[in-house]
Amino acid sequence: MDIEQFRKAGYQAIDRICDYYYALQQSKFSVLPDVEPGYLRPLLPSNAPETGEDFSQIAEDYQKLIVPGYTHWQHPSFLAYFPAGFSFEGILGDLYASSVSNPGFNWLASPSCTELESIVLDWASQMLGLSSSFLNSSGVGGGCFQNTASEAALVAIIAARSAYKAAYPDTKLEDMRIYTTTQTHSLGLKAGVILGLSVRALEVTREDNFSLRGDTLRSALEEDKKKELHPFILIATIGTTSSGAVDNIAEIRTVTADFPEIKIHVDAAWAGMALVCPEFRELCFLEDINAIADSFSTNFHKWGLTNFDACPLWVRDRKYLTDALDITPPFLRTAQGDAGIVVDYRNWHLGLGRRYRSLKLWFVLRGYGVEGFQKHIRKAVDLNKFFVELVTSSNMLSLCAPPSLALSVIRINPKPSASNQATLPEDALNDLNKLFYGKLSARKDIILTQTVLNGQFCIRLAIGSAFTQEVHIRDAFELITHEAKLALEAWEQPQIGA
Amino acid sequence: MDIEQFRKAGYQAIDRICDYYYALQQSKFSVLPDVEPGYLRPLLPSNAPETGEDFSQIAEDYQKLIVPGYTHWQHPSFLAYFPAGFSFEGILGDLYASSVSNPGFNWLASPSCTELESIVLDWASQMLGLSSSFLNSSGVGGGCFQNTASEAALVAIIAARSAYKAAYPDTKLEDMRIYTTTQTHSLGLKAGVILGLSVRALEVTREDNFSLRGDTLRSALEEDKKKELHPFILIATIGTTSSGAVDNIAEIRTVTADFPEIKIHVDAAWAGMALVCPEFRELCFLEDINAIADSFSTNFHKWGLTNFDACPLWVRDRKYLTDALDITPPFLRTAQGDAGIVVDYRNWHLGLGRRYRSLKLWFVLRGYGVEGFQKHIRKAVDLNKFFVELVTSSNMLSLCAPPSLALSVIRINPKPSASNQATLPEDALNDLNKLFYGKLSARKDIILTQTVLNGQFCIRLAIGSAFTQEVHIRDAFELITHEAKLALEAWEQPQIGA
Repeated sequence: MDIEQFRKAGYQAIDRICDYYYALQQSKFSVLPDVEPGYLRPLLPSNAPETGEDFSQIAEDYQKLIVPGYTHWQHPSFLAYFPAGFSFEGILGDLYASSVSNPGFNWLASPSCTELESIVLDWASQMLGLSSSFLNSSGVGGGCFQNTASEAALVAIIAARSAYKAAYPDTKLEDMRIYTTTQTHSLGLKAGVILGLSVRALEVTREDNFSLRGDTLRSALEEDKKKELHPFILIATIGTTSSGAVDNIAEIRTVTADFPEIKIHVDAAWAGMALVCPEFRELCFLEDINAIADSFSTNFHKWGLTNFDACPLWVRDRKYLTDALDITPPFLRTAQGDAGIVVDYRNWHLGLGRRYRSLKLWFVLRGYGVEGFQKHIRKAVDLNKFFVELVTSSNMLSLCAPPSLALSVIRINPKPSASNQATLPEDALNDLNKLFYGKLSARKDIILTQTVLNGQFCIRLAIGSAFTQEVHIRDAFELITHEAKLALEAWEQPQIGA
Repeated sequence: MDIEQFRKAGYQAIDRICDYYYALQQSKFSVLPDVEPGYLRPLLPSNAPETGEDFSQIAEDYQKLIVPGYTHWQHPSFLAYFPAGFSFEGILGDLYASSVSNPGFNWLASPSCTELESIVLDWASQMLGLSSSFLNSSGVGGGCFQNTASEAALVAIIAARSAYKAAYPDTKLEDMRIYTTTQTHSLGLKAGVILGLSVRALEVTREDNFSLRGDTLRSALEEDKKKELHPFILIATIGTTSSGAVDNIAEIRTVTADFPEIKIHVDAAWAGMALVCPEFRELCFLEDINAIADSFSTNFHKWGLTNFDACPLWVRDRKYLTDALDITPPFLRTAQGDAGIVVDYRNWHLGLGRRYRSLKLWFVLRGYGVEGFQKHIRKAVDLNKFFVELVTSSNMLSLCAPPSLALSVIRINPKPSASNQATLPEDALNDLNKLFYGKLSARKDIILTQTVLNGQFCIRLAIGSAFTQEVHIRDAFELITHEAKLALEAWEQPQIGA
């Protein structure tokens, strides 16, 4: 493909993306695709072609074969998992970045990639209200993109393990422990299996809204210390995946003051973006995070308007990362790196080559401004309030946990007056709700996610697509109510027959 | 930004990318930027703007402030590190993929993302001549994108550690050993520090062209076994970074037949792409790789025409990965995953969310065809032959290792007849070549990388940009010769004075 052919194909791509978003805004297609597992293989040849093909044919096949197999994360009725960040500015940032195909691992490997990342993550840090200790401009702390929140947590754990081993060199890996809660994202357990380290998931209760409390942490630390085990890091969460729970960082702060060897990583993958709004900062324990977190991570590619991927990790001391991860063979040495006058970000993360992500975040921050981010967050929170009102007024549905920002967790729990039954026992409720979720997940016009909260099967609804409006939430509620009725009828049917 | 504003900004981006490549083809700017460390911060505000800005202003600032800070990896005179993959098809693939911002970690999270990856990596595997055991369609083995070759190796090591611990559960992590050679990419050492495992770098010699030999491996294995240490994986390299050395997989095959507990990961990050050409397969030990490799990785984002990033990892048995990495919390369960009828790629790598990379590789494979890839590889190898001829005819320069595919490693080593001196001692030669490299790296019109080969300081020249032609190699040679002369003069000056 020559430059002029690229121009033509590029214009076509831009036009088709415009068509796609016009159609999506108007809900002209369902959020879930109508395909079965294995749909694609029979539609494609079993080998790459011997000779190159014309791009117009490739572009046609893309429209015809690939687009119909998408789950549309930007669809107004996408309410599963957490939202995937999106903005037109983000696409443009990715486009310009991709066009220079630059794995800028060293400063010299592309000065503007490194320098823009350093500056833009300072902008982002300040927008979220993080302490100035986390600024790249501090020369001590700093921020750097990781691939995902899982990898950000993994890097934080590796840094903490390294710091702990430096302080206590005789510690056996087998005796070292990562602390999470039972509600921490699977990234905690996965980091454990990746590193071959044990993970202790601290218990949290429904009464505490699934938030880690200081007493639980203190007891566990004392217990493990007695057993000569070595807890060395706590992954605290601001906004868990299952219910949006927020660990009590104020109490954690008090406890860890007595255990200064424990590092704290704050995983705010989803909810961290709410820190752009001053009114959510106390709820998210910002002051305590700023006081004690050794590292903090949030995903601009979730609720932050930025196309996947864009996950910064900030640390209070960059040597925390580089002491653990700096490997510099001769072929990666540069005059600037040797002189110590530049940052070589490859020493802040797992891999070597790195995607050029700062450009899109720069575009998005400038395109929206702080106010645009605040508006985006507040809109989703307001839509969730609206949804919660609808649930509260329902005879069939109830909340399984307090709503958290733009996330609600619900289940069918028929009020006795609304049915002929008394309150159902928990086991039966779980079965009923699995039946209910089965019905919901058989539909193509909505997507929600299941979860389990301390034994209670429930259904999550997470708001945040840039295109979701009140009408979509109302439609979602009506559809959920409709399926709940059918589930209850199906449930009661065999009961009568029994 | 609304859809029509995006269309306008998108057309502009496409046009500017065209402008950029016209200018680059004509070498209208230098490969290295003329900026000093810290150039960008004073040019940008210290905070994100409060209100959103017009995109035309942002796009202007991009041209004015960011582009002048790029190291141009696609420049015809980019001869450092290894090439960064590029094609217009790759940009278009990234553009379409970015436009749907989809972190397709589960099949359901986007069926076409998962299915296209599975099919396209089969195409790629067949194009490279890998055994059918590595095909996704085998239902047993398979391929999956990782972030980089470093992470591919890390994942392979984690899988091997997990398999070893399953077979020998009493093994202490402290006693487990990763095997590499002294020439293995720093990814080996880095994996060791990440996992807290020791790494034994086996010696290789200049006489063996820096290739790992069977006897060295066997001695090390026997020695470590005697010490009750547990080597559990060997990272073998096809095309090392420093000199393009190829470990002797045939001999490794013979040795590891006696040590079946040792897993083999083949890192062919750069040179693996040469396997598209049948004439390079023997040199790269393809038959032996197909016989013994548990995992194999190569970067389409290096020599493979695909924009960063595109790094597949193939395994002979997918359970090798999933046994080590599958963590499935309730909120990630799906009906299709539970039924075992789909692949959920999140269990094949470190993170959870994953970039949608198959689209660009599909575009590139179709746009070029197998023939297009072969042509691209052969052109770079031929250009390197041309460079080697020039070096061989030089009185000042010599090769430090046999040329490997499209990589040459050189240094000044004046032939006695060309100077008044006898052959210089090694220490002096190293100093001279550091001076030489200092001169080369002060220039903006070429970029090369330094390395050290068993104590010998030398300079790498790696060919592979899509735009590099014979004229650029001739120019590079002349420029190198010019700087070599100046270095020799500067070197001889104080000698005379002394």
